[in-house]
Amino acid sequence: MGTLITEGVDASADGLSATDSLAHPALEEIELAAVLHALSDPMRLQIVAALAAGDERTCKSFELPVVKSTCTHHFRVLREAGVIRQRSRGTKRLNSLRREDLDERFPGLLDSVLRASRA
Amino acid sequence: MGTLITEGVDASADGLSATDSLAHPALEEIELAAVLHALSDPMRLQIVAALAAGDERTCKSFELPVVKSTCTHHFRVLREAGVIRQRSRGTKRLNSLRREDLDERFPGLLDSVLRASRA
Repeated sequence: MGTLITEGVDASADGLSATDSLAHPALEEIELAAVLHALSDPMRLQIVAALAAGDERTCKSFELPVVKSTCTHHFRVLREAGVIRQRSRGTKRLNSLRREDLDERFPGLLDSVLRASRA
Repeated sequence: MGTLITEGVDASADGLSATDSLAHPALEEIELAAVLHALSDPMRLQIVAALAAGDERTCKSFELPVVKSTCTHHFRVLREAGVIRQRSRGTKRLNSLRREDLDERFPGLLDSVLRASRA
């Protein structure tokens, strides 16, 4: 996968291990197959559709009917594929859609998926 | 998954079991998550991009660097998701893209994926 842009997590603040850093693929490292895989789960599609509204949101704010670890997993898949950006603020993780990056890398793809998800 | 449109396979002709019939989801049964999953593999993306040229092709004609059973698997995932149509002719299976169905169900999606696969 090559070099990753890594944003460190303050381990003491949120109890995360040092290896649980927030790695994001750079724009040119975003792979189509990985993006499609990340979007191929109904719950992740729902998360992406909600983030498309533009707000930065915490995992918890989605009130998904799953345990926290499953929620964390879905967000990690989305981040590692380059679909969302995650940043730590205190004990929280804020999530936002990498819309501009995705539009630049794969023009029209995200829009057509979002439109399809509303169909 | 609901009712499937099934095209029977002449078991005596190609040695397939009776359960290995060629089930295709109807247009309204094609699910976005399943389509994205089917497209989320580099080899399946390659198959779809090749079928987008319009010809009906056999599995073998792709000369993919995998064993026959893997090839068969990829085509089955694409068919069950509603991405391709398969029909039997003698001992062969002919594959074609369900472009019109996909365009009707999820406008713009296939085109944006094909464009992205060439990026």
